[in-house]
Amino acid sequence: VVTHYSLVTGPYSRGFHLITDEVLNVVDSWPASGMLQVFIQHTSAGLTINENADHTVRHDFALFFDALAPEYKEGLLHDMEGPDDMPAHIKSTLSGVMVSIPIIAHKPALGTWQGIYLCEYRNKAPRRHLIISIIH
Amino acid sequence: VVTHYSLVTGPYSRGFHLITDEVLNVVDSWPASGMLQVFIQHTSAGLTINENADHTVRHDFALFFDALAPEYKEGLLHDMEGPDDMPAHIKSTLSGVMVSIPIIAHKPALGTWQGIYLCEYRNKAPRRHLIISIIH
Amino acid sequence: VVTHYSLVTGPYSRGFHLITDEVLNVVDSWPASGMLQVFIQHTSAGLTINENADHTVRHDFALFFDALAPEYKEGLLHDMEGPDDMPAHIKSTLSGVMVSIPIIAHKPALGTWQGIYLCEYRNKAPRRHLIISIIH
Repeated sequence: VVTHYSLVTGPYSRGFHLITDEVLNVVDSWPASGMLQVFIQHTSAGLTINENADHTVRHDFALFFDALAPEYKEGLLHDMEGPDDMPAHIKSTLSGVMVSIPIIAHKPALGTWQGIYLCEYRNKAPRRHLIISIIH
Repeated sequence: VVTHYSLVTGPYSRGFHLITDEVLNVVDSWPASGMLQVFIQHTSAGLTINENADHTVRHDFALFFDALAPEYKEGLLHDMEGPDDMPAHIKSTLSGVMVSIPIIAHKPALGTWQGIYLCEYRNKAPRRHLIISIIH
Repeated sequence: VVTHYSLVTGPYSRGFHLITDEVLNVVDSWPASGMLQVFIQHTSAGLTINENADHTVRHDFALFFDALAPEYKEGLLHDMEGPDDMPAHIKSTLSGVMVSIPIIAHKPALGTWQGIYLCEYRNKAPRRHLIISIIH
């Protein structure tokens, strides 16, 4: 059995944002055992799981990702929507657009230091649509 | 309940290819609510979800990925199968080999601009084997 | 129905390690049809699926990933736990922390050359906690 919830959130500034609580709060009933999946319906944003405590980690993520997929790279053809658009698509594939977490004893079995990130890769982003699914 | 379908496709040229229709067409019955997972059984190809409209996006993906994992990098040991082989393994891990999409109202809840890419990382690829799974 | 198993393993040395057998051995009952998911509860290690035969592939993975997310990058703020910590977080997001594999005919439908890697990104790692989930 799979149950879905909708979450519309943001707009967020360009960067990496902890949305664990936002995601978990939309689920009104947790099975004893199951899987939680979060999916973002966009191609210039992403989802990942990473460190939930020190905000400098999110700062450094932006630094690294901007270096991995730089703007104004020679040879790029897709620039209609601005120089941040194509790098945003690349970053979305590098981080992925979904995370999946076991549910044990009625809650998501995240590690102590794990949180869910919304990765906003556009300079001027719209609100983002996510689907949260519970498999049990 | 999990139902699997098999898809053997290609060979595709090196690059990024939209296979959304190919994938969806093998599923002969969609549950009202569920999850769709696509898995590629290879280590030098990948799957990802990204922009489904402008073909220049797929061109630029190839450009970016070739720069991220260049051939003839100093120190590489694994070159028996040619200089494109080890970068293909790296790219496969960077994009991943599976995508998972919610099924809502009898169809995959992809965003407006999302499509499924088969990422072919080899110069001269064989046909590729995929498994399409429906969880409901 | 989702059944979970726990696997505590390592410590592993920094690098990429094949753990397919370790993972499969904790599952004591395989459904005829289902999904296997493996999740690592850490932010400085990862999981991926890649080549299971030639050990030089794992050597070259380390080489590539160290170049993708180098230590001592200018502008990094998060260095309290040492210079390998922030690159470890980045690599964890690049590889991901979960893999999901179809189960067909009572076994995981990995391709001939596919194995499960534990990616250890820290210089001096603790034991790592994994959750193995069977959906059927």
